[in-house]
Amino acid sequence: MMTKRVESHDQNSLPCPRRSLSSWAALERLAENAKDFSIRDAFRDDPKRFEKFHSQSCGILLDYSKQPITSDIKEKLLALAEDCELAGWRSRMFGGETINESENRAVLHTALRSPAGLSIKAGGEDISLKIHATLARMKAFSEHIRQEKRFRHIVNIGIGGSDLGSRMANEALKPFTDRFFDMHYVSNLDPAHLSETLRVCDPSKTLFIVTSKTFTTQETMMNALHAKAWLDDALGPESVCSHFVAVTQNVSKASKFGLDPEHIFPMWDWVGGRYSLWSAVGLPLCISIGFDQFQAFLDGAHEMDRHFLDAPFEQNLPVLLALVGIWNRTFLKRDILALLPYSQLLDKFPAFIQQLDMESNGKSVGRDGRPVSYPTGPIIFGEAGTNGQHAFYQLFHQGTTIVPCEFIGIKHSEYDYPESHKTLLANVIGQTKALMDGQNDPDAQKQLDGNRPSVTLMLERLDPRTLGSLIALYEHKVFTQGIVWNINSFDQWGVELGKTVSGQVLKRMELALESKGSLQGTDSSTQALIDAARKDQ
Amino acid sequence: MMTKRVESHDQNSLPCPRRSLSSWAALERLAENAKDFSIRDAFRDDPKRFEKFHSQSCGILLDYSKQPITSDIKEKLLALAEDCELAGWRSRMFGGETINESENRAVLHTALRSPAGLSIKAGGEDISLKIHATLARMKAFSEHIRQEKRFRHIVNIGIGGSDLGSRMANEALKPFTDRFFDMHYVSNLDPAHLSETLRVCDPSKTLFIVTSKTFTTQETMMNALHAKAWLDDALGPESVCSHFVAVTQNVSKASKFGLDPEHIFPMWDWVGGRYSLWSAVGLPLCISIGFDQFQAFLDGAHEMDRHFLDAPFEQNLPVLLALVGIWNRTFLKRDILALLPYSQLLDKFPAFIQQLDMESNGKSVGRDGRPVSYPTGPIIFGEAGTNGQHAFYQLFHQGTTIVPCEFIGIKHSEYDYPESHKTLLANVIGQTKALMDGQNDPDAQKQLDGNRPSVTLMLERLDPRTLGSLIALYEHKVFTQGIVWNINSFDQWGVELGKTVSGQVLKRMELALESKGSLQGTDSSTQALIDAARKDQ
Repeated sequence: MMTKRVESHDQNSLPCPRRSLSSWAALERLAENAKDFSIRDAFRDDPKRFEKFHSQSCGILLDYSKQPITSDIKEKLLALAEDCELAGWRSRMFGGETINESENRAVLHTALRSPAGLSIKAGGEDISLKIHATLARMKAFSEHIRQEKRFRHIVNIGIGGSDLGSRMANEALKPFTDRFFDMHYVSNLDPAHLSETLRVCDPSKTLFIVTSKTFTTQETMMNALHAKAWLDDALGPESVCSHFVAVTQNVSKASKFGLDPEHIFPMWDWVGGRYSLWSAVGLPLCISIGFDQFQAFLDGAHEMDRHFLDAPFEQNLPVLLALVGIWNRTFLKRDILALLPYSQLLDKFPAFIQQLDMESNGKSVGRDGRPVSYPTGPIIFGEAGTNGQHAFYQLFHQGTTIVPCEFIGIKHSEYDYPESHKTLLANVIGQTKALMDGQNDPDAQKQLDGNRPSVTLMLERLDPRTLGSLIALYEHKVFTQGIVWNINSFDQWGVELGKTVSGQVLKRMELALESKGSLQGTDSSTQALIDAARKDQ
Repeated sequence: MMTKRVESHDQNSLPCPRRSLSSWAALERLAENAKDFSIRDAFRDDPKRFEKFHSQSCGILLDYSKQPITSDIKEKLLALAEDCELAGWRSRMFGGETINESENRAVLHTALRSPAGLSIKAGGEDISLKIHATLARMKAFSEHIRQEKRFRHIVNIGIGGSDLGSRMANEALKPFTDRFFDMHYVSNLDPAHLSETLRVCDPSKTLFIVTSKTFTTQETMMNALHAKAWLDDALGPESVCSHFVAVTQNVSKASKFGLDPEHIFPMWDWVGGRYSLWSAVGLPLCISIGFDQFQAFLDGAHEMDRHFLDAPFEQNLPVLLALVGIWNRTFLKRDILALLPYSQLLDKFPAFIQQLDMESNGKSVGRDGRPVSYPTGPIIFGEAGTNGQHAFYQLFHQGTTIVPCEFIGIKHSEYDYPESHKTLLANVIGQTKALMDGQNDPDAQKQLDGNRPSVTLMLERLDPRTLGSLIALYEHKVFTQGIVWNINSFDQWGVELGKTVSGQVLKRMELALESKGSLQGTDSSTQALIDAARKDQ
């Protein structure tokens, strides 16, 4: 029998380690009155409102004054962070303690961007030397590739954490890339993805980077084997060794694939896929923008790490962003967060943060092994503005569900057409105001209620350093929320079952091909879909 | 003062034209017990469950048996569609009546794919001849471009409905495109978008298609003027006439821009942007896949129109898909719908449907001018599978919010690597089963409750005809939901205010540049953001 836990998060049979906190209870009471809170009126009543609800660091301004919060709510949210021992957990993470308990691992993506010379311990071992030795290898390799110019097409084969971060950053930092290289990212099992990529590549000028922690990821290995066969067909089997690089923990499997040990870059036990961009998983990016810019990217992230460690909570960007999110998600019961970067180059940023956040905090069991009794990670989606304005913003302004919005603006553009860029900025600022103000119209169809909350992040520019800071800001936001929600943000047990069941379905499809008959023991829907899928194949 | 309507959808001061229906009341009662409904148990108890809850037409199988529904619920949902006079509204739409009342317009995107020779009236006028005359012009023009091969780069400049559909379909139908052409779509105001596109274009081989109903859309006109200047710089002012085409209703403005009347293709008053792909807005697609395939695309949509018109509700794909959505959204109060096509080529399909659905049904005022008292259009998001599995599916399996999923599988691939494609199909089917089944695990962190609802659409193939049917299926789904929710799906008043306010912000930014001082009369947040944006510019 299945347990009946779904949608019954109000059960309170045992005292909840969070709901029994006085700050939590105070916030629940404050939330009851929040419906009547008018953000617009709050600005009218307090000309200093912006002063009270913004913060700035690492070239990023965070404005959360267009949120349904008061000084009292802010104070209680900060108290909640204290009560949940955020500072202690933060030290434990940076200190290499085993905070990913269900996988018995440390969580040390921050170590990957830490300057050389600082000792960092994971499981008793100083990992700093290994990290900087790997960075030195990445530097040497990327400089070689950039100088030699033998390879024009760099094809990363990886999926999830081994794909999305590097792909997103490569796009975001386009003005900083060496245009000699055509960067490709192949992730999907769908043969269209690899086929369409190989179509535009010249085998003799193509370098493959196979990225998989285990070197067994289904999608990645199928695509890598097909790529290998394609290369073999064109240039012979001896070409594999010089056209393939791997980023993996599994040296033995990568060697069997035909890789030179010199071309195998490490991944680490203490870094999860969605936090791995700073490791050798960033190799394609490092080739594309060059090591110095990659270092600036790491430095920007490290600067945010320092800010997260050192700044008092009331000025701490990740803490504030996290608490505003918790206010909306947990206390005001809003399921969704829209992430809206006003930059075409950040087109894939919402998808990256979607992965970072939803895979980390899409959990419903607490660290204590009991179901949580409150909403955790929200559903995150978004598109680059102004595109989204012409698509789904209608619902933000007039829909029946309140969607909190997180806007990102960029002050300085790397491109010409200053008038366009200025108008772009006017659009992002204008949206925050229109969502808040709404408009009264005698025609009901044109009525906009307003009072729609938003946060705005204004970046100085979109360069490697600031992008590093921005990503680290979101990493620590997710961490902070995980701590307050009392969940482990660093495992992902929910994705395992899908893999197992897909394997079973595949076996059934293959059996069905042989027997051409119906199969017993599965539900009629799954069986019918298998029958449909195998027909005429 | 703002009215206080936000989040107060339970008000019942006047009888609601929907909630007073007996079918609606019956569904509300049924929804109370739905929490205890186990989808898995329902399959165990009824081996014929799939038979009862699926339908098939136009090369598309719809399986909605993995939903928390019973025969009783289905019956009441079908009764609700009857009670809301869906059939009458459907006739009115196809018959060219002014069902977009707030804009005083007919809604006739279906006419665009109707065969020649049928008279279709809009505002007393037979529009069929105009439609087919335009198609003949599109045929002649696209054949000329495809044969001449003078232009290698086809750059569509448009945004929202003038961008997303054509871009999505061009990607989805890649195997059917003429690879001679490099297709580009520029939408964003961000100068990065146009700059990065022009970078890879040779002016002498570039054709621009400027798509804007009014020829005043801010993004489109700014980009078009920059493109014109770029061409002028390279080839002189006389080149504009032969390198630019427009799709617009505003012939006068397009002529002033420098366009030959022969190169101006029409848009229609009775087709909204997000439904306009079937008109000359589809010109880039028509060039890319050729007119015969474009005709097949129209034929597929028309086939779905016929199915929507003729099939009884209980077999009618758009009606069934809509009613399942209403059950989840309105009666089970689920805010979100995930759209998950297992096809890399359908990567942009969720964004397209997001626009279609959220701009159409993200409304909270009924046709009667009163606020609705129930949730309407959901928030839609998604990514191509299997990519999403490695990103956000964690939350689907273990998060605190139930996210209904709509899966799309494709039986036949146009590519090699049959083993990859078979495994892809096993993944989509496996996910539907894993979400439903869940798994019991003594380790609480690995427990998956299951009972997560999904719908699966299984397509024969992804060709122009089936894609046409698929898009039309979603168009009619959205229409059906709009009728049941008693809202006008065809206006979009919610997007106007953002434009106005952005214009005001832009003026303030410019004033600020002159005066370098603080401005009065706006809230402190908006003012601070303006100050931040203008600094050092």
